[in-house]
Amino acid sequence: MLTPWGKNPITFIRQVVAVCLMPSLLDDPNIPTDVKDRARAVLKGCKGGSLGSYSDSAGIEIIRRHVADYIEKRDGFPSHWENIVLCAGASEGIRGTMKLMIRHENGIKPGVMIPIPQYPLYSATIAEFDLHQIGYYLNESTNWGLDISELERAYEEAKKVCTPKALCVINPGNPTGNVLTKENIQKIIQFAYEKKMFLFADEVYQDNVYAAGCEFHSFKKVISEMGTPYNQMELASFMSCSKGYMGECGLRGGYAEIINIDPAVKTMYLKSISAKLCPTTLGQAVMECVVNPPREGEPSYKQFMAEKTGVLQSLAQRAKMIAETFNSVPGMSCNIVQGAMYAFPQIKLPEKAKEAAKAAGQAPDVFYAFQLLENTGICIVPGSGFGQKPGTYHFRTTILPQPELLKTMLEKFREFHSNFVKQYE
Amino acid sequence: MLTPWGKNPITFIRQVVAVCLMPSLLDDPNIPTDVKDRARAVLKGCKGGSLGSYSDSAGIEIIRRHVADYIEKRDGFPSHWENIVLCAGASEGIRGTMKLMIRHENGIKPGVMIPIPQYPLYSATIAEFDLHQIGYYLNESTNWGLDISELERAYEEAKKVCTPKALCVINPGNPTGNVLTKENIQKIIQFAYEKKMFLFADEVYQDNVYAAGCEFHSFKKVISEMGTPYNQMELASFMSCSKGYMGECGLRGGYAEIINIDPAVKTMYLKSISAKLCPTTLGQAVMECVVNPPREGEPSYKQFMAEKTGVLQSLAQRAKMIAETFNSVPGMSCNIVQGAMYAFPQIKLPEKAKEAAKAAGQAPDVFYAFQLLENTGICIVPGSGFGQKPGTYHFRTTILPQPELLKTMLEKFREFHSNFVKQYE
Repeated sequence: MLTPWGKNPITFIRQVVAVCLMPSLLDDPNIPTDVKDRARAVLKGCKGGSLGSYSDSAGIEIIRRHVADYIEKRDGFPSHWENIVLCAGASEGIRGTMKLMIRHENGIKPGVMIPIPQYPLYSATIAEFDLHQIGYYLNESTNWGLDISELERAYEEAKKVCTPKALCVINPGNPTGNVLTKENIQKIIQFAYEKKMFLFADEVYQDNVYAAGCEFHSFKKVISEMGTPYNQMELASFMSCSKGYMGECGLRGGYAEIINIDPAVKTMYLKSISAKLCPTTLGQAVMECVVNPPREGEPSYKQFMAEKTGVLQSLAQRAKMIAETFNSVPGMSCNIVQGAMYAFPQIKLPEKAKEAAKAAGQAPDVFYAFQLLENTGICIVPGSGFGQKPGTYHFRTTILPQPELLKTMLEKFREFHSNFVKQYE
Repeated sequence: MLTPWGKNPITFIRQVVAVCLMPSLLDDPNIPTDVKDRARAVLKGCKGGSLGSYSDSAGIEIIRRHVADYIEKRDGFPSHWENIVLCAGASEGIRGTMKLMIRHENGIKPGVMIPIPQYPLYSATIAEFDLHQIGYYLNESTNWGLDISELERAYEEAKKVCTPKALCVINPGNPTGNVLTKENIQKIIQFAYEKKMFLFADEVYQDNVYAAGCEFHSFKKVISEMGTPYNQMELASFMSCSKGYMGECGLRGGYAEIINIDPAVKTMYLKSISAKLCPTTLGQAVMECVVNPPREGEPSYKQFMAEKTGVLQSLAQRAKMIAETFNSVPGMSCNIVQGAMYAFPQIKLPEKAKEAAKAAGQAPDVFYAFQLLENTGICIVPGSGFGQKPGTYHFRTTILPQPELLKTMLEKFREFHSNFVKQYE
C-alpha cells in the first residue's frame, strides 16, 4: 500500500484515525500512548464520543483549537480558533470562501486574480460561480516569480470589464514549483491593500520546500509582521492533509484560517457551509495529527520523524532530478523546483509539429502530450490546462513517482523528445 | 461511544474501514474474514492500493458496481454502475445534482418543487443557487400525505413567476415521518411526466419504515414497473450512510443514482464535481459495507443482523412512543411516525401565548420552543424552520434519544406544555 508519494502512509496518522474508528484499540498495548492521547482528544470532542456523529459545520472544536495553536507556533503571532474552519480538503475551503465573492452589481462581475499558470480548481470555480477570471502571468525567466508590475497590468486591464475583488496566490506554486520570498510577499500584500482586495493564500505545500535558500513564509505571518493597517486585511489561507509529507489525499482533510472578515459576512459564511452539514470527521482526525504530531519524548516521535524526513528528502531529491534532466534535453528548459510537487518545463516545438497538431485538430502541447502517451505510456498534462503565455508550450509533470521509476521515465521521455524533434524538423 | 441512534456503531462497518486504514490488520486473526474481504476489495479499487489516493470524482469503481448490484437486488430492475455517483453524504449528491437545474432565461428562474414541511437543505440550496422555491403542502389530515391536487395547485401558481423544472420528494418523509404508498408514487411520477420535470427522490430513510402496512418503494422501482414512457424520465435518487441502522453521519458516505440524463449534461455534471476532487474514500468504504453487508453464512452475519435489527426495532418502538405520548397531551396532535426519524406534532397555542410571542419579537412556535428549552432543557426545532401552513404551529423532534431518556423527556415535555397552556389561557 503506497501513498501517491510512493511511500507507505505515515503510521501515526493511520493509527490515530483507526483508533478513533475502533475505540476498542485504546486497550491494545501495541498502540503507542501518544496515538491513544490524540484519539481520546478527538473522541472527547465528538458528540456522544463518536466520529459517527455530525460535528459542527466548522469542525470539532478541539481540533480547531489545535490548528490555531499550530499556526501560532509556526508564525509567532496569535491565531484564534474561531477563525479556523475545518474542511474536507483545501478545495472545499477555497470554494466555500470564494463563494463570498459572488455579488453582481449592474451586470458587472466581481473579478478574481489568479496566477497563470494556475491550478485549475481556480478557473473551474470562478467559472462555476460566474465570476470574472483575471489572470496574472508568472515570470518564467525569474523562476516563475510574481512581478508586481504584472499584477498592476492585469488589474488595470480587468478593471475595464469587472470589479476586481480578490487576489489568489499559490505559494509554493502549483504547477510552477516557485517559492515566494518574504520581500515579494510584502509587496503583494501592499498591492492587495491598495486595491482593497481579499487575499487568498493557497499554502497547501507549506511543508514542501526543497531548494537551498528558500523558506516558506505564510501570508498570515508577513501580514502580522507588517502591522497596521496590513494586519487588518481580509485574508483566507488554506492547508491540507493531501500534500506535505502526509499524502492523505483520499481522506479529505484541510482547514481555512479566515481573518478580519465582517462578522455579518462570517455569520453568512458559516450558514452557507452548514447546508453540507460537516466535513468528514475522519478527515478532521487526520488534521489533528497534522497540527499536533508526536512531540519529542513521545513514543511515536522517532518513527514519525523518520517517516516524515524520509518522504521530504526523497521529494527534494526527485525535484532536483526532474529539473536537471529536463534542462539537459535540447529544446526543453525547466525552472528549479523550489517547492510543491511539480515541474512546468517549457518545450520548443518545431513548426512542422505545430502544423501536424493543427491537422489533428489539437493544440500543439496537447498533440505533444498525446504523442508522448502513445509512444511511451508517459502521461503529462499539457500546459494549456494551466494557462501559459500565448506561443509558449509547457507541460506539467509531478515529482511523485518513486526515484527508480522516475529515472526510467525520464530516460524514455528524453528519447521520445529527441525522436519527436527529429521527426518534425 | 454511541452513534446518534443511542447505540454502538455497527461493528462490521467500523472494522472494514479500520482495516482499509491499517492493512496490517489483514493479518489479525481476530478480524473476521468477511471484513477482510470487503477491505481487500476496496483497497484493490484504490490507486496504489491505498485509501490515501484520490479516487475518481464519481467514486471507486468497485463500490459503484456494488451500489448498482444493491439497487438491482432491492428493486428487481437493472442498475448501471456508471449511473452511480458516490458522494460525501446525500447532501453533497443532492446539491451537485440540483446545480444542474441552474439556467436563467430572460430573468425567469427555474423552479424546484419541494414539500412543506421540508428538510431545510432544500430551501437553503435553492436560495444559494438562486432558484425559485415552489412549496407544495403535505396534507397533515392524511398523515402528511402527498396530494396530487396540491402539486397541481402549487405548479400552476408557480408557473406565473418561474419555470418549474424539478420535483423533489422525500420518502420516507423528513420531518413528517410519512411513507408514500406505491399508488401515490405512481401518481407523482405521472404528474412529473406530464409536466416534464426532473425527479429528485430523497430516499435516505429507506431502511427506516416502522408502521404496520407501510413499505418502502423506490422511485426507481416504480418508474421501472410503469414502463415506457415513464422509465425514460430523468430521475436522481439518493442514499446515505447517515440514516438507516448505520447512523454514520460524521463519516460522510452516500450515493446518487442518476438515470436518463442527456450524455452531454452528464459529462458536464462529472466535470463540475471534479473540482472537489473526490468524496472521502473512508466514506466510500462505509458505503461498500452498506450495500454489501455480511451475507448469511459469513462470519460477521449474526452479529451484524443482531445489531441492525436491534437498532431498527428500538427506533420503531420509539416512533410509536413519541406519537402516542404527544397525542395524549391536550392541545397537541401527532401523526403516526410511519418512517424516518422524526415527528412533527402540531400544537394549539393560546391567543395570549401568541401575543406574548409578538411582544418578545418571536414567531409563536419559536417562542414556545425557547420557553421549553429554558424551562426544561429540551431542544426542539420550531416548525417555521421547516415550513407549515400559515396559522398552524408545529415542532420537529427526533426519535433518536434512547428509550429511557425519551420517556423522561416526554414526561417533562407534557408537564411543561400543560403549565404553558395554563399560564397563557
